[in-house]
Amino acid sequence: MKNCMENVRKKKPLVHCITNYVTVNDVANVILAAGASPIMADALEEAAEIARLCGGVCINIGTLNRRTIEAMFAAGREAAELGRPVLIDPVGAGASRFRTETAARLIAEVRPTAVRGNMSELRALVSGDGNTQGVDASSVDAVSEDNLSEAVGFVKKAAAKFGAVVAVTGAIDLVADADTCLVIRNGRPEMGSITGTGCQLSGLAAAYLAANGERALEAVAAATMTMGLAGEIAFARLREGEGNATYRNRIIDAVYNMDEMTFERMAKYERT
Amino acid sequence: MKNCMENVRKKKPLVHCITNYVTVNDVANVILAAGASPIMADALEEAAEIARLCGGVCINIGTLNRRTIEAMFAAGREAAELGRPVLIDPVGAGASRFRTETAARLIAEVRPTAVRGNMSELRALVSGDGNTQGVDASSVDAVSEDNLSEAVGFVKKAAAKFGAVVAVTGAIDLVADADTCLVIRNGRPEMGSITGTGCQLSGLAAAYLAANGERALEAVAAATMTMGLAGEIAFARLREGEGNATYRNRIIDAVYNMDEMTFERMAKYERT
Amino acid sequence: MKNCMENVRKKKPLVHCITNYVTVNDVANVILAAGASPIMADALEEAAEIARLCGGVCINIGTLNRRTIEAMFAAGREAAELGRPVLIDPVGAGASRFRTETAARLIAEVRPTAVRGNMSELRALVSGDGNTQGVDASSVDAVSEDNLSEAVGFVKKAAAKFGAVVAVTGAIDLVADADTCLVIRNGRPEMGSITGTGCQLSGLAAAYLAANGERALEAVAAATMTMGLAGEIAFARLREGEGNATYRNRIIDAVYNMDEMTFERMAKYERT
Repeated sequence: MKNCMENVRKKKPLVHCITNYVTVNDVANVILAAGASPIMADALEEAAEIARLCGGVCINIGTLNRRTIEAMFAAGREAAELGRPVLIDPVGAGASRFRTETAARLIAEVRPTAVRGNMSELRALVSGDGNTQGVDASSVDAVSEDNLSEAVGFVKKAAAKFGAVVAVTGAIDLVADADTCLVIRNGRPEMGSITGTGCQLSGLAAAYLAANGERALEAVAAATMTMGLAGEIAFARLREGEGNATYRNRIIDAVYNMDEMTFERMAKYERT
Repeated sequence: MKNCMENVRKKKPLVHCITNYVTVNDVANVILAAGASPIMADALEEAAEIARLCGGVCINIGTLNRRTIEAMFAAGREAAELGRPVLIDPVGAGASRFRTETAARLIAEVRPTAVRGNMSELRALVSGDGNTQGVDASSVDAVSEDNLSEAVGFVKKAAAKFGAVVAVTGAIDLVADADTCLVIRNGRPEMGSITGTGCQLSGLAAAYLAANGERALEAVAAATMTMGLAGEIAFARLREGEGNATYRNRIIDAVYNMDEMTFERMAKYERT
Repeated sequence: MKNCMENVRKKKPLVHCITNYVTVNDVANVILAAGASPIMADALEEAAEIARLCGGVCINIGTLNRRTIEAMFAAGREAAELGRPVLIDPVGAGASRFRTETAARLIAEVRPTAVRGNMSELRALVSGDGNTQGVDASSVDAVSEDNLSEAVGFVKKAAAKFGAVVAVTGAIDLVADADTCLVIRNGRPEMGSITGTGCQLSGLAAAYLAANGERALEAVAAATMTMGLAGEIAFARLREGEGNATYRNRIIDAVYNMDEMTFERMAKYERT
């Protein structure tokens, strides 16, 4: 698992991101922190051409509009046709029909390698019964030790339905394909007080996918652990009086400084 | 006044922001720092639907364009119809006819709960004689002890004209309805060397409005003091060699860590 | 050279930026750090009017689209007609035909005062043989002591062709007009692990141009050195465990705190 991280540093893949303008700077910086190179390009006139240049594509609908949606489809389809990994982050699916439908169409037509979201977004996409609170998961959808086996079953079913690796992040992170689910217990609840830790993970996971060709499940899981570990390391470094803005910087710093030994020592996961 | 802040933490309102892409990340993080949840969505296809989900709407014209202006009207009207608070930040009114006219139309048609800007923007909207310098207030429009009573009169008149709480921020902050003006003496001049402290205040004020239903004047004033206090606390924590980028982070951190006792001890205001 | 910096602080020029949404916040903050005022405005409806207000215009095509391209031409032409400096940053030229063609048309029609990019972007524009890797320079295009005189010749030729000051930044920075090239050896390779240090320099250089009318070559060179020095100072202040996110903040902080004495002591350049 830890060598997924090293492969990013060795191969330095280009990652094409069509992402929201809220957290785009942090997404770019976390991709750089991991050793890959981001390029943001959301015009239809160049979307497919940029996707061809890149080792992977990250599509995040956080501030979608009709113009950028066209570019999402063009980039996604081009990458998929060339066999390059595509990750879709259905930000706010369930919060508006526009988001739910766009995310569903992207997944159906692009056939992405991976989908990463919170549980409410995933429920909205799979069963239409999510409880999305804006762009955050509803507490009624939270994965806990109590509902873990139901949640694992749901995520595997979603993975089977989408034909993709599905990552659901929250207090416990689940990364699954149709057969196997990795249950990951890293991260800190305080990460929810920063905008964009989910978007950052999506960008990071696209970089890991780009550098770890045939191992999509491991790549997304390793990215998820990297982000969780960075959240733990950064939290431990916070000093009195510091809050979510400094925490945000320290998380990216921790990705930048992550090494294999730390990863191996701190990563907590099991397969089910 | 201080319980306006606590109400945000208790009710955790969703705040719909249609705001500029320059400072949007800081706006999202300061709303999270205060304990509320931001959602940014600027497509007409979902603007009204997202506004319905939310406790309040913040409209900031900092990087307006014809596409997002449509969404501003749709979200603003929907929220206003449902009796939810809407705050309008007329960034750069006076700097171009496009901004002045759009801001004026938004205020006239949406009938917002609050308008927050600098004195040059407000003068451009009310009397057409502002001296806007780009997106900053002109020094000739600065509120000082010398012209305070004229400024208070102007802000009350603007509030009467708009049928809204009006907040004018600068060296001295004025928050008024038609009858009462709170004169606030918090904050630091160095806050002007960071992009977006005004935008952050607008987002914060929308969160305070969303959590403090019937008390619009108090809510906007409390948000203004929170931001000013955060500026003072963050400034006191700056170390040698640190500048506006670190100051920006520390201000959001200070909002994150603000408590009622600090608020009560440090807030400096009077009613006139 | 150092007084170029002081002129920005004295004259506080307004700088109109039409720039990408990835790094726009850092561009605004670095312009403020230098003592100038940024205004971001990318709608055709106001582009020329805002350009008229400003001392200079910075056009960066990092996330170009058909709507903002119209505004780039309108603002660029208006400023050029009024004799105000325009800087063009051809981000990603060579990575897509859309970028290469747009940058080439902007340079041909606006006749900017300065063009700033990396070597791969410049080669793509001048000779069509660049090796752009997304938005980063290819290592085969890197300027080193070995190929320095060829590179200097190329940059002077580009300057002659464009009728503009050309700045090519990388391990060694070159700032040239048709006759003279300044070879600058400041900066740190770690600056490449932050998104937007190039964009920041473009914004900064536009501010320096706006405040130093007749001395375009010196102004762009002084901005380039300021950015390089800030990278060195910020790097020296990094502590264990800090990475690219903190480094980003410290660079802007270092611009904020830069003084003439530091500039004079640390700037390393020669004319050829």
